[in-house]
Amino acid sequence: MHRLQSALDAVVESIDTPAPIVLADVVQDNIDRMQDFASRHGLDVRPHVKTHKCVEIGRRQIEAGACGITAGNVGEAEVFARAGFDDIFIAYPVWPAGTKRHRVRQLAGSTRLRIGVDNVAAVDALAGAMGDEPERLHIVVEVDCGARRSGAPPEVAAEVALAARDRGLVPAGVFTYPGHGGSARGARERAAADQRSALSTAVRTLERAGLDPEVVSAGSTPTVEFSTGDPITEIRPGEYVFGDLDNTRLGACSEDQVALFVAATVVSNWIPGQAIVDTGTKALGREGHPDKGYGRVAGMDAVLAKLNEYHGFVALPPGVAQPEIGELVPVVPNHVCPVVTNFEEFIVTDSEGASLQRWPVDARGFLN
Amino acid sequence: MHRLQSALDAVVESIDTPAPIVLADVVQDNIDRMQDFASRHGLDVRPHVKTHKCVEIGRRQIEAGACGITAGNVGEAEVFARAGFDDIFIAYPVWPAGTKRHRVRQLAGSTRLRIGVDNVAAVDALAGAMGDEPERLHIVVEVDCGARRSGAPPEVAAEVALAARDRGLVPAGVFTYPGHGGSARGARERAAADQRSALSTAVRTLERAGLDPEVVSAGSTPTVEFSTGDPITEIRPGEYVFGDLDNTRLGACSEDQVALFVAATVVSNWIPGQAIVDTGTKALGREGHPDKGYGRVAGMDAVLAKLNEYHGFVALPPGVAQPEIGELVPVVPNHVCPVVTNFEEFIVTDSEGASLQRWPVDARGFLN
Repeated sequence: MHRLQSALDAVVESIDTPAPIVLADVVQDNIDRMQDFASRHGLDVRPHVKTHKCVEIGRRQIEAGACGITAGNVGEAEVFARAGFDDIFIAYPVWPAGTKRHRVRQLAGSTRLRIGVDNVAAVDALAGAMGDEPERLHIVVEVDCGARRSGAPPEVAAEVALAARDRGLVPAGVFTYPGHGGSARGARERAAADQRSALSTAVRTLERAGLDPEVVSAGSTPTVEFSTGDPITEIRPGEYVFGDLDNTRLGACSEDQVALFVAATVVSNWIPGQAIVDTGTKALGREGHPDKGYGRVAGMDAVLAKLNEYHGFVALPPGVAQPEIGELVPVVPNHVCPVVTNFEEFIVTDSEGASLQRWPVDARGFLN
Repeated sequence: MHRLQSALDAVVESIDTPAPIVLADVVQDNIDRMQDFASRHGLDVRPHVKTHKCVEIGRRQIEAGACGITAGNVGEAEVFARAGFDDIFIAYPVWPAGTKRHRVRQLAGSTRLRIGVDNVAAVDALAGAMGDEPERLHIVVEVDCGARRSGAPPEVAAEVALAARDRGLVPAGVFTYPGHGGSARGARERAAADQRSALSTAVRTLERAGLDPEVVSAGSTPTVEFSTGDPITEIRPGEYVFGDLDNTRLGACSEDQVALFVAATVVSNWIPGQAIVDTGTKALGREGHPDKGYGRVAGMDAVLAKLNEYHGFVALPPGVAQPEIGELVPVVPNHVCPVVTNFEEFIVTDSEGASLQRWPVDARGFLN
């Protein structure tokens, strides 16, 4: 029997589906392995909590040696700051308007806070938000390394950093995100090379301007194996903690390292070659496409070929017996992050099915 | 200025982005128009709360004349039952295992409850869950009309209903969902014709078996205009309450009837022809595809061509000026339902921007 089916069978009486099941021992192995990798290469790990949004998992990452955490927005940072996390980097070009102006200042008063910026207007706005204590806010200049998302050209990193220093903020360094790597190993390696090149350029411009960057920060689970060596000081992987099908396809995790699946129930099976399960987009998100599917039933070699909001359409390959109504199956998502945000809590067990806990998805819904 | 931009400008100081902004007057018009349509055709309206998950909006639907509500799962039904809703149909083939066994019975004790079934095994399980008071649970047999999702063949509706009666449950009628209509008006009309045909067949089999269906229930916003006349007694539209781009494209609502948009802030604009906004998949869901985009900026004639989790990539057509960093823009989603489930609350104003309230998304996260 597939290891995920065994874990599911062990908790079946205590849960309702759909539900996200987390294997705590696999999570811990994933955390420890990433920390070992970073230590061997002299890097800090600053895990991105967007993936798990869970204080308990964040604590385990810190206990394993993470230097702090990365958040995707102010709301996530607030939740973790309230839980006692004292070193938080919001790796996002935050624009502090509306009530966020006040919230940023308050947050900087309660934790060591770094925020991303990629332009001088945002530097001005953040300095304005900080009022008479701008020095409490450290900024990290985001540079683009080819993803063409956010991030200034590396050549202007010093301009942004100097504007920050002029306004009393503390320019702490630079970061980037190599999100333009394709699925092939070579493409990810090239994206990581672009990352190193952009960060190196940015560091040179800072040094020429008399600034000494404290942090030079790189993404992300799929590229982390190539993100070692000068000038990188920090990595910000997120998805490694759970893994998923996309990371398995990329070779960024193995199937045995997948630590989260969604428990689903077969609710209808009238159509030959198909079973309907109760994991639709409101459980899995619409991550995938019809060819690759929207998730995989572990142990059944079958993908969810289509999703409605509350219905998942499992396409059964020839020769695979149609499951019975009421049968529970483990669904491994393509992309784990959007799954987590759909649920209030994780059902936590381990590979032996020996325990059952519930960990809240604390930062769920804190979207702004 | 676009009406959605005006509404956004009126609340800008009080909100953080991303945030779902609801125009209460437009919602009320949508509710009243659907109720008028149903009344003219002698139909009950049983709105699907999966779209709004909001008690306040459900109350307005009941006040306007809805006969009850439709829910997508037990958790949604529980939230509305606790809020006093006393007539709830879970239009889903619920399998009552795990703790759901107990929850179904408890729910049937607190509200008039109908649950969908499409097979005899589920009838047995539901009767088992109800213990010594099966008569408190009314079941509605789901039949398939061509969507090939859940639903028994219409010819076996009586078999399922009779099994329910034998087990002491109350067979209340039949329902279906015409989800196989394409985007063209003709395709939707054909799907609605299939719906009528399947429901008619099912009703005939019930009548031949000596059963008199109390309810013959049809979907859904895109097909509701074709879902009138014998044998249909009830319609279950959901999305009409907010509208969205997909329904606008289908002709199921007009642009002026869209009542919800997501407020977004421009956070980066280094790439010519592109602006990055703070509405990614964690606000909008990944609803769309690269060609049609993942949402539209109202008043700018620009779509979100790509989404990351916290980043939306607005593709600016030639001649459209690049927005400034910090500019707020209204994003109309392709599909509104997955947006709602991402947020804790709606920011509620009206077309004049004259008021500001917050309505909780009460049933958010109640996924099972």
